[in-house]
Amino acid sequence: MADTKVYRASTTAPVNIAVVKYWGKRDAKLNLPTNSSLSVTLSQDDLRTLTTAACSATFDGDSLTLNGELSDISGARTQACFRELRARRAAVEAANPALPKLSTLPLKIVSENNFPTAAGLASSAAGFAALVRAIANLYELPESPSDLSLIARQGSGSACRSLFGGYVAWRMGSQDDGLDSKAELVAEASHWPQMRALILVVNAAKKDVPSTSGMQQTVATSGLFQQRITQVVPANMTLMEEAVRDKDFAKFAEVTMRDSNSFHACCADTYPPIFYMNDASRAAIRAVEAINTQAGKTVAAYTYDAGPNSVIYFLEEDAATVVGAFHEVLGAVGGWKDGAATLKSSAKIPEQTAAILKDGVSRVIQTGVGSGPVKTDEFLITEDGQPAKR
Amino acid sequence: MADTKVYRASTTAPVNIAVVKYWGKRDAKLNLPTNSSLSVTLSQDDLRTLTTAACSATFDGDSLTLNGELSDISGARTQACFRELRARRAAVEAANPALPKLSTLPLKIVSENNFPTAAGLASSAAGFAALVRAIANLYELPESPSDLSLIARQGSGSACRSLFGGYVAWRMGSQDDGLDSKAELVAEASHWPQMRALILVVNAAKKDVPSTSGMQQTVATSGLFQQRITQVVPANMTLMEEAVRDKDFAKFAEVTMRDSNSFHACCADTYPPIFYMNDASRAAIRAVEAINTQAGKTVAAYTYDAGPNSVIYFLEEDAATVVGAFHEVLGAVGGWKDGAATLKSSAKIPEQTAAILKDGVSRVIQTGVGSGPVKTDEFLITEDGQPAKR
Repeated sequence: MADTKVYRASTTAPVNIAVVKYWGKRDAKLNLPTNSSLSVTLSQDDLRTLTTAACSATFDGDSLTLNGELSDISGARTQACFRELRARRAAVEAANPALPKLSTLPLKIVSENNFPTAAGLASSAAGFAALVRAIANLYELPESPSDLSLIARQGSGSACRSLFGGYVAWRMGSQDDGLDSKAELVAEASHWPQMRALILVVNAAKKDVPSTSGMQQTVATSGLFQQRITQVVPANMTLMEEAVRDKDFAKFAEVTMRDSNSFHACCADTYPPIFYMNDASRAAIRAVEAINTQAGKTVAAYTYDAGPNSVIYFLEEDAATVVGAFHEVLGAVGGWKDGAATLKSSAKIPEQTAAILKDGVSRVIQTGVGSGPVKTDEFLITEDGQPAKR
Repeated sequence: MADTKVYRASTTAPVNIAVVKYWGKRDAKLNLPTNSSLSVTLSQDDLRTLTTAACSATFDGDSLTLNGELSDISGARTQACFRELRARRAAVEAANPALPKLSTLPLKIVSENNFPTAAGLASSAAGFAALVRAIANLYELPESPSDLSLIARQGSGSACRSLFGGYVAWRMGSQDDGLDSKAELVAEASHWPQMRALILVVNAAKKDVPSTSGMQQTVATSGLFQQRITQVVPANMTLMEEAVRDKDFAKFAEVTMRDSNSFHACCADTYPPIFYMNDASRAAIRAVEAINTQAGKTVAAYTYDAGPNSVIYFLEEDAATVVGAFHEVLGAVGGWKDGAATLKSSAKIPEQTAAILKDGVSRVIQTGVGSGPVKTDEFLITEDGQPAKR
């Protein structure tokens, strides 16, 4: 008789925020980038995706449920991940005929974020990392996180970096098949655990241009972009790896801010121009500059992805100076951790800048560097294959 | 007995708005640029500086009065202009001893703009062009406008382009002494008289960074700037001269918009970043894009100098489409010419964009391509050397 068992595995996966940005594809189908990038993995206590992968002969077809909503899996990216993972399971099964033929069974994936998508935080990175890691757990694949990053990359480029914790590089690689375009660990979170991040969630009309099409437009039309990918980013990658190795925050901060500026400059040089930052985003830059100036040293660094939210990195030892200064201005919005109100800063954000921030920031998220995907016994699918009541 | 005669000469000079931008000095003292630039001279009916230059043994020392206020002339820039012009007059006097020795007499300069400085329009270009032209008239110098542009350039770089009407190039030159860094006529206004400009004066806090220091910071810190000056601008200069020669508006417009984007991208890539445009400036870009899309062809082109004001070039034949669309949204602000209200556009500025413009634009200026400096009998100094009552 047929095997009606439901096989399950769950994992959590983190969000990562690049400090050397990924912008530009040399191969859109395989998500091969025009330059390497480097990111900090953020703590899953604050931002994480929980994903359960299950397979069973009782399921009718593959399915993916994201935050309670059935999601379209016909897209080439999701299909590529399913296909690649099944192929690797099939290889395992071929090597050991005693194993159940999970590669032939329908997949049911259920995934939930612990943060509002409304926050406009790139959730696709955590989402695809969790999907790949969960199915790899279900299939008991021997592949390393770096090998799995090849698969996650095909789901969403930056997802490849969310398979590791700490400080992670995505090496662009040079092969046409992309087999050398993968993520690798630069340093564990434990190497430099003092790294913190304050995210300012900025009110915005809908996103200016989706990243994928925006990247393509930049590659095709920006007269400055070649300089970024051939000169600016390679230099920033080297400097950033040195900064992480040496735990040199001033260097980390300068490269982070310069690379964010360079990325958004290339967006502005795109034709027609792409603008992800708004007046509130720019006010946050002025605030960081004011805090650093008043602190007499670099204690904070801003960076912006393809959106208006400001991610501000700082060290735990400077929490009072940095968090205190922003809480003084934004104490009324949600998201502060207990104790934020008690942090008194020696630095004051200039009045005009503060007014723009008050007007434009809707909430904050306080977090820090964290670990990579973690296998968990928390399941979003029951033993008999039903959605778990939560 | 001593000559107590007051010698006088007056001129008007125009504002110019670059379509290939000047940004970056290779020699700050001589105002030698890192790249060539090209501008459109705007009509003096709408924007002009009137300057009277006088000299007399009865004056006690050189003086300069700008818009009714005595101005500091001790600066190296103003002194350089006075010195260079006196040297040329001295040469003329040496060649013809019958001439009065004006080069030895104190200079009194009185200058007035017909537009509010509050408008934040670069008035230094028109100001120094008028100062140089007025003194050259007073001294009856034989120098050509191009030769005089060498002097105006030392007062304010972009001033060299305001010595001509129409379409004007500033050749960067290569000599260390800057003797080949001068303005030259690309085409008279009469070659392409249909060019119009609509200026949106945008509310702004004080200017982000003064141009001179901003340029220096960009040259020193932007990783993308070298690409602009070595690749992007030379290509844009060639394309723009072809566009003007062929009266090809679509080409003129694309190069204008791309070069403005490239310039502001380099400002954003400066460390710390320089932001001249704000959300209202960006909304004007979206408005121009919407108008062009709805018109089914390029009928408008935006460009931004070192400030948030939007200068929108268009052809007279498209006045209804372009001016009409903006008047529909900004009809309530000042500066519209008679008849603007009657222009009905087929294009509509999207609601969200319109709201940002309504909120951010304080007035408009309607103008077009115009002529260079004009000698005039309107004097700001009386025959006996006193300020003229006006």
